[in-house]
Amino acid sequence: MQILSPTLILVNPQLGENIGMCARAMLNCGFTQLRLVAPRDGWPSESAIKASAGADALLEQATVFDTVAEAIADCTTVYATTARQRAMNKPVVELPALPTHRAVAPQEHIGILFGAERSGLENEAIALADYVLTIPLNPDFSSLNLAQAVLLVCYTLMHSAPVAAVDTGLEPPADKAQLLHFLNRLESSLIDKGFLFPEEKRPLMMRNIQTLFTRAQLSTQEVQTLEGILTALRR
Amino acid sequence: MQILSPTLILVNPQLGENIGMCARAMLNCGFTQLRLVAPRDGWPSESAIKASAGADALLEQATVFDTVAEAIADCTTVYATTARQRAMNKPVVELPALPTHRAVAPQEHIGILFGAERSGLENEAIALADYVLTIPLNPDFSSLNLAQAVLLVCYTLMHSAPVAAVDTGLEPPADKAQLLHFLNRLESSLIDKGFLFPEEKRPLMMRNIQTLFTRAQLSTQEVQTLEGILTALRR
Repeated sequence: MQILSPTLILVNPQLGENIGMCARAMLNCGFTQLRLVAPRDGWPSESAIKASAGADALLEQATVFDTVAEAIADCTTVYATTARQRAMNKPVVELPALPTHRAVAPQEHIGILFGAERSGLENEAIALADYVLTIPLNPDFSSLNLAQAVLLVCYTLMHSAPVAAVDTGLEPPADKAQLLHFLNRLESSLIDKGFLFPEEKRPLMMRNIQTLFTRAQLSTQEVQTLEGILTALRR
Repeated sequence: MQILSPTLILVNPQLGENIGMCARAMLNCGFTQLRLVAPRDGWPSESAIKASAGADALLEQATVFDTVAEAIADCTTVYATTARQRAMNKPVVELPALPTHRAVAPQEHIGILFGAERSGLENEAIALADYVLTIPLNPDFSSLNLAQAVLLVCYTLMHSAPVAAVDTGLEPPADKAQLLHFLNRLESSLIDKGFLFPEEKRPLMMRNIQTLFTRAQLSTQEVQTLEGILTALRR
């Protein structure tokens, strides 16, 4: 099964012009699902419409969220696009391998995160993703702008050879809203119990816990089981 | 054999900024051979250097030509990148098939032509190429800028699976300077003999003749044979 209609999510994009160029790049490859997380210069944006070169219908349909967690809530698998590999215990997929690296069930909803123009994605956003996606380029000169990264990802997916749907026997992953509900409950519980201590280390510790549970590609049933375990342990 | 180090040739590029962005796109993929045919705003260009984001060494080495014929003189195979297929009797290669569509001998020198920002390549330039290269995109919305087209071509070549060098038993094609020398002699001869008549149809007739001989992928020996035939016929 191919990743036929992924949702592209721009996290904290700065210039409206770049958002417009991303929309244009997407539509060139036939992709139309765009989400924005807290665009710096507000939304809607005249400069985005101007730069989209006619892809403005896509911009009109774009939805805006306050946080990455909300933007990926209905996604089942999320890729975080980064310029270089980070020191995070998360599987890395190189772009040429993206179309074939795993079977995608028809009911799955794929989200692909892109960070801000200069800084890229924050570790907090990457921690929420299932996979890190890197674009292999000249190691001595890797300098893509945001819309170029979006273009290469979309073009690669558009022209990937179809992968036969393989029934792996696995249930599809739960959506992120379910997983994050569990993780938020777990975090509160661990704070209550004094586990996330000292407080200044709490974000890093939670990120590691998030990463661990995200990597498991938990099904809806499995997340429910974990919720039950948590309830039982808190009794 | 892969197309490992093609020469990219920008024909009549307008804005220096776009030339700089093309250089940046190329270097991201490890390609460094850039030629310019009559850039509209002159050369060298401060705005090109600024837009190259550090790829300025590539711009410094770029060579400038007055005509496409001069720019491709030492190439053995030339691709003309166009947004849509033209009514020209020339084989069309779609970008995903470019890395594998023919065996390339080590001594061959591949040139890839890109037209001006808005207008693309003129028919006169396409006629000089061996193949038309198209980038398959959304048929309802194909709107790449120059640097994006360059990026997709370079990225595709960079990440193509290696094709084993196959000894086809064929001699490699002659370089374009040899072929064009013959075609120019042929044109003069045909004008002398009153074949290229009426004069207003001469460019189109010559383009068709060029296309015919270009498609044959003539070897050096074969071009020499044609030169001999022409000499003999003119006696």
